[in-house]
Amino acid sequence: MTTGPRFTDLAASLPATVPFVGPETQERARGAEFVARLGANENGFGPSPRAIAAMEKAATEIWKYADPESYDLRHALAAHHGISAENIVVGEGIDGLLGYLVRLLVAPGDAVVTSAGAYPTFNYHVAGFGGVIHAVPYRDDAEDPDALIAKAREVDAKLIYFANPDNPMGSWHSADRVQAMIDALPDGCVLCLDEAYGEFAPVGTLPALNVSHPRVIRMRTFSKAYGMAGARVGYALAQEGFATAFNKVRNHFGMNRAAQVGALAALEDQAWLGEVVARVERGRERIAAIVSQAGFTALPSATNFVTVDCGAEVERAKAVLDSLVARGIFIRMPFVAPQNRCVRISVGTKGELDQLEAEIQNLSSTFTNRS
Amino acid sequence: MTTGPRFTDLAASLPATVPFVGPETQERARGAEFVARLGANENGFGPSPRAIAAMEKAATEIWKYADPESYDLRHALAAHHGISAENIVVGEGIDGLLGYLVRLLVAPGDAVVTSAGAYPTFNYHVAGFGGVIHAVPYRDDAEDPDALIAKAREVDAKLIYFANPDNPMGSWHSADRVQAMIDALPDGCVLCLDEAYGEFAPVGTLPALNVSHPRVIRMRTFSKAYGMAGARVGYALAQEGFATAFNKVRNHFGMNRAAQVGALAALEDQAWLGEVVARVERGRERIAAIVSQAGFTALPSATNFVTVDCGAEVERAKAVLDSLVARGIFIRMPFVAPQNRCVRISVGTKGELDQLEAEIQNLSSTFTNRS
Repeated sequence: MTTGPRFTDLAASLPATVPFVGPETQERARGAEFVARLGANENGFGPSPRAIAAMEKAATEIWKYADPESYDLRHALAAHHGISAENIVVGEGIDGLLGYLVRLLVAPGDAVVTSAGAYPTFNYHVAGFGGVIHAVPYRDDAEDPDALIAKAREVDAKLIYFANPDNPMGSWHSADRVQAMIDALPDGCVLCLDEAYGEFAPVGTLPALNVSHPRVIRMRTFSKAYGMAGARVGYALAQEGFATAFNKVRNHFGMNRAAQVGALAALEDQAWLGEVVARVERGRERIAAIVSQAGFTALPSATNFVTVDCGAEVERAKAVLDSLVARGIFIRMPFVAPQNRCVRISVGTKGELDQLEAEIQNLSSTFTNRS
Repeated sequence: MTTGPRFTDLAASLPATVPFVGPETQERARGAEFVARLGANENGFGPSPRAIAAMEKAATEIWKYADPESYDLRHALAAHHGISAENIVVGEGIDGLLGYLVRLLVAPGDAVVTSAGAYPTFNYHVAGFGGVIHAVPYRDDAEDPDALIAKAREVDAKLIYFANPDNPMGSWHSADRVQAMIDALPDGCVLCLDEAYGEFAPVGTLPALNVSHPRVIRMRTFSKAYGMAGARVGYALAQEGFATAFNKVRNHFGMNRAAQVGALAALEDQAWLGEVVARVERGRERIAAIVSQAGFTALPSATNFVTVDCGAEVERAKAVLDSLVARGIFIRMPFVAPQNRCVRISVGTKGELDQLEAEIQNLSSTFTNRS
């Protein structure tokens, strides 16, 4: 029993880093809970009361495994989107689906294209399967469709990751621009269009759903506008052959049963969704006003967060972040220059934004004097 | 847009089979719900009322992501088992953890050893990562530790799968026998000891927990004795370096938040667990009596199911299964000869076993006349 496990060469080569440190870890480190949880783009307005009721009811049925086909949810989603259930894969959040997607497409050495500073969990999965990331810079604080396509062509990428609206910048492209990107997609290259924040975006942001394209896969989630991040329900929309390929690798019994019924109930309450989207819009406006008083600039956002330009280099943004975190306001910031001159603040409830406002006012003299 | 995705060679080679067809799929096919759900070794007595209450309460907090470290649950499990939290990995059921384990260890062509007719989901994962399964036969309706070790030595296996107690046969080995297997484990080979049914087993079945062995990993779950199959909470116990390796590949935000707190509450209610285990024991006795009246033989079981020897070849067992399923009794049967002369019946509630008894009595004349 002297030797350890024989990990694969790939597994042995992977770093022990994690995509995100959770707020609970930070709370344990600081010895106190956050007073405002505005760092993970969660949706503090929560899911539809109908979804909560469905999950409460499901607690007594939790002894049953979930339906491995997520039949009811997939069929409801199919009706909602006007497509077939065979075009839909349900999985353990977009994070889980991205893992399966990368596993299906990316062998060691395969080229993958994303934007520098885009979703770290995607990069985590690509590294985890030995893929090679080619990152193109943001342009004017937005992902750059032309550059992504050009890079994919240059490196013969099997996969492009593109989020619209974007995280962490909150920027977005028009449906026409995204459709042009789809039309320019090189042969043999898949476009993963992450629309996690799509419900928050203005009309005209999401291109028409066309599940006949063999290499476009769109990611949606119940974590953001539907307010169910902790449930872990995401779904992918793709051509049938692409969607069903996930059945070769996914954890068939990976879904939580209460989450399935909760998502179904949430989907059925589109009135609640509309109300939440309106509240989020007002929340964005309030965050913009709050940070403006402190001399910072809110960038336009089509999401449930506001990216705030702190007006200088990473040190300023980092100081703002550290100061707010120390005062119990959980926020995050972009990872890569020049986006990391910003901090990212999720829309929260009125009470949380009141806390944010109070703490930013406490900070503002410090920072405005330094600017 | 003419060509499809460029799947990896491995992904392209995988079959579209699934490890298990869910009961809901069968219900949709037959156009009626089952009256007794006794096929998936679920636990109809359900989780502790405290766990249900915790999950109900968590429904309103589902807008928050779960703690990606499962800190509270891992620390409670550590205290429960008298080990360190660093020896524990929490994941989306044992199914999810088996996937991560195989991914860490098995590259295409690597040898893996299991028993012929053991857990199909394990084989699914091995195939999914390109591993080569070497299966040894059961011996006297039990997995054969000596044969597993000998085969692992012969093929230079990186991984052995061994369940104690066993599924689908319900048989078990003594802790001493399993410890001898651990002691004989070839260098460079990991033993995955699946103890999903461990809480049901007699004292003296589970070897002492020794997380200092670098190549033994033990799988436990809240799906069986704790009655939370639909929550998807499993955990693995291993040496720290082995356990933390999972952080390189796991879906860090893959856990359902309500499931985490439910599992924590379930763990804290050991009195409920003890009561459930006692009820399951009485349920096994009742199933044995029921099938005995029909001329079939219940095999000894250390699990929450009873494997029933139908006394002939696969055709008899298949006929029993089909007949019961047609009458609304969901059960399953082993996949491989000679185990597939049996059907497998999970312990259910009194109402479900009443249904089983009625339907088996309806069947019995048919089958006893044929024997």
